[in-house]
Amino acid sequence: VTRAPRAALIATGDELVGGAFVDTNSGALARRLAQCGWETTRCIVLGDDEDLLTATLRELAPAHDAVVITGGLGPTLDDVTRHAAARAAGVELALDARVLAELQALFATRQRPFPPSNERQALFPAGAEVLANPQGTAPGFALTLGACLVCALPGPPREMLPMLERELVPRLARHRPPSSGLAQRALYLVGLPEGVFAEQCGAAMRRDANPLVGVTAKNSVLSVSVRARAASVPEAEALAERHADELARRFHAHVYSRDEPDLAQVLGRELLARRIAVTCAESCTGGLLAARLTQVAGISAVFERSFVTYADRAKTEELGVDPALLARHGAVSAEVAAALALGAARRAGARLALSITGIAGPAGATADKPVGLVWLGRAFDGAVVTEQRRFLALGRDLVREFAVTAALDLGLRALVPRPH
Amino acid sequence: VTRAPRAALIATGDELVGGAFVDTNSGALARRLAQCGWETTRCIVLGDDEDLLTATLRELAPAHDAVVITGGLGPTLDDVTRHAAARAAGVELALDARVLAELQALFATRQRPFPPSNERQALFPAGAEVLANPQGTAPGFALTLGACLVCALPGPPREMLPMLERELVPRLARHRPPSSGLAQRALYLVGLPEGVFAEQCGAAMRRDANPLVGVTAKNSVLSVSVRARAASVPEAEALAERHADELARRFHAHVYSRDEPDLAQVLGRELLARRIAVTCAESCTGGLLAARLTQVAGISAVFERSFVTYADRAKTEELGVDPALLARHGAVSAEVAAALALGAARRAGARLALSITGIAGPAGATADKPVGLVWLGRAFDGAVVTEQRRFLALGRDLVREFAVTAALDLGLRALVPRPH
Repeated sequence: VTRAPRAALIATGDELVGGAFVDTNSGALARRLAQCGWETTRCIVLGDDEDLLTATLRELAPAHDAVVITGGLGPTLDDVTRHAAARAAGVELALDARVLAELQALFATRQRPFPPSNERQALFPAGAEVLANPQGTAPGFALTLGACLVCALPGPPREMLPMLERELVPRLARHRPPSSGLAQRALYLVGLPEGVFAEQCGAAMRRDANPLVGVTAKNSVLSVSVRARAASVPEAEALAERHADELARRFHAHVYSRDEPDLAQVLGRELLARRIAVTCAESCTGGLLAARLTQVAGISAVFERSFVTYADRAKTEELGVDPALLARHGAVSAEVAAALALGAARRAGARLALSITGIAGPAGATADKPVGLVWLGRAFDGAVVTEQRRFLALGRDLVREFAVTAALDLGLRALVPRPH
Repeated sequence: VTRAPRAALIATGDELVGGAFVDTNSGALARRLAQCGWETTRCIVLGDDEDLLTATLRELAPAHDAVVITGGLGPTLDDVTRHAAARAAGVELALDARVLAELQALFATRQRPFPPSNERQALFPAGAEVLANPQGTAPGFALTLGACLVCALPGPPREMLPMLERELVPRLARHRPPSSGLAQRALYLVGLPEGVFAEQCGAAMRRDANPLVGVTAKNSVLSVSVRARAASVPEAEALAERHADELARRFHAHVYSRDEPDLAQVLGRELLARRIAVTCAESCTGGLLAARLTQVAGISAVFERSFVTYADRAKTEELGVDPALLARHGAVSAEVAAALALGAARRAGARLALSITGIAGPAGATADKPVGLVWLGRAFDGAVVTEQRRFLALGRDLVREFAVTAALDLGLRALVPRPH
């Protein structure tokens, strides 16, 4: 019987366990591991506590094929990963002369004195393999605890991510147990309640189903995973692919991508592929929609400018919205959403313009316009569409996020119609 | 000897352990628990695995005063928290008739049929206390495993966060062991490298120091924590406060806040308090700066409009930047940053205008202007300041984030000067 290789992830740092910062490394690792056919059983965030990290490593190693630790490789005294790994393995720490020389050379290049504390970064558990870190001063290391591969990588994502590709992925490929097959596919849906999706999937969401369907809602997007197990990776791949195809057919009115979770990237790709100039007119989202679109690398080929018209006067002065329209219907109305989109398209000379006007809260609600009421507008080659959304009881940040998602979807549907 | 009450956090969900989504609940819980004098020893993310959750609860309970679980309370089959908690406690699940009636009434109000699967949400471990969830259909519950308080809360943050305040915090206060004192203070710094800070703090960052100083860098902001232990909470509070005061004096040129990590909120507060109208002119950040400012509730009192001028032509047409200036110095230059700020201030009629023009990459670099080069501009009551930043080797998203942080700081320094 088949078993996927199992990994556990540990992220260390007082600032993580204390909630000052969010651990994004474990998510990045788990996604990449899944692509390699590995199953992540758990992600553990620990403070900078040598005893606890040592005990956790000893406990996880026997039940996992690999344990990946991020963080705790810095030069300061609260960086304890090296010491904990050595203790868990029952070995001493040894100074690596080559790493020390490299560190000293790096500081010399930067014309900075070499702080004695940085010598710590040349210490490794005896017998461990050093993993080069071209982006920083903290090399990682790899060793085995029994049959378990333990890899330690630095905490900063811009150092960790290249090492994940260059150092970890090849070692995982060599370390995986024979004849295990796990594969995963994804679908991304918009405009469908999670409960409706789950109801229609039924037994495929039971824990023991194969393929197993999972779903999570975030900012009104559903991320659906299809995970398949089989005797080999190719068989698992085929099984996952077949089931994902079937789901894509069944939910075709809502599936906006099968590879890219970010709706802005999906819309950006389409705009770039067809060279369609785009602009935005934003009220309650205050630039968030434009910020999402300009996250897309190369978007400058189709994105020239955008408008944040928060106040009524700005809507009139910047985008020519008739003050009478504002007085009659209010800023949060289909009429003003349409006028904003048309005004932005005209002013920017863009074929596609998206507008958002809504009440993000906490203030601003009226008797007939609650917090969460949003009107979206789209002008595409002169044709205007408006849509209303009611994002009730969500709070300011979420109303803005939901509104941006809805506007991106409204834009995408102009280019890639999805029959309802 | 004093001991802070210890909590462990568990977040459940295949989408979390698989890396599709980031667990933000544990961070919010850990921050709130720290304010209540509790120490969080670890945050564990698990898949929807009843056996593993049961085993983890059994393992954590004896070593902790409380375990808080988020997620796994939904109506679907992969929601296993109720079952795992019952097994760990060695009790059966029991249907709560009152909760069931409330659920059925809720669906009736929404004029939707009651799905049989939702009956699952009225099941609780026998003897558990039901915790009301006014924001959703999933109530939480509380029970004790030996001396350990176990609380289960729903996963969606907008449901979890109100229950954290209303249900969890009072129970933790009742459950804390006597005579333990832990207190925490924070400082937020900008414009100082982490290594320099750490070097100057020295022994206060050793794990056994009291007070203990911790530091983390994110988007060029340093979050510094000061944690103190003492025989009682008031004594710990006093000790933490004294040490935080001392750090604030020593690093006064960099400390922008002692209570609010978000630089945009700090700037927003100042603008609102003094009724100073603000606007932005953004090139490479594409609306991100305006989006951050408009995240501040009530900002409409001082924020009327903002400009995303991505293309050179837009800079000229929208904000009157002289094409000759663009030709001579390039869009990424002190001269254009200044012209953007002045143009935006004039056009918006704002006392303060912040501008950003830079090369976010991956494309756009020239021989003398690398990816990561950013010019910032500030016009305040007509006086213009420009600053250059070189955010090298960071990647598009981080260059944009760093640039926004630097621009917010440039704005804040106009209102609250910090001597260097």
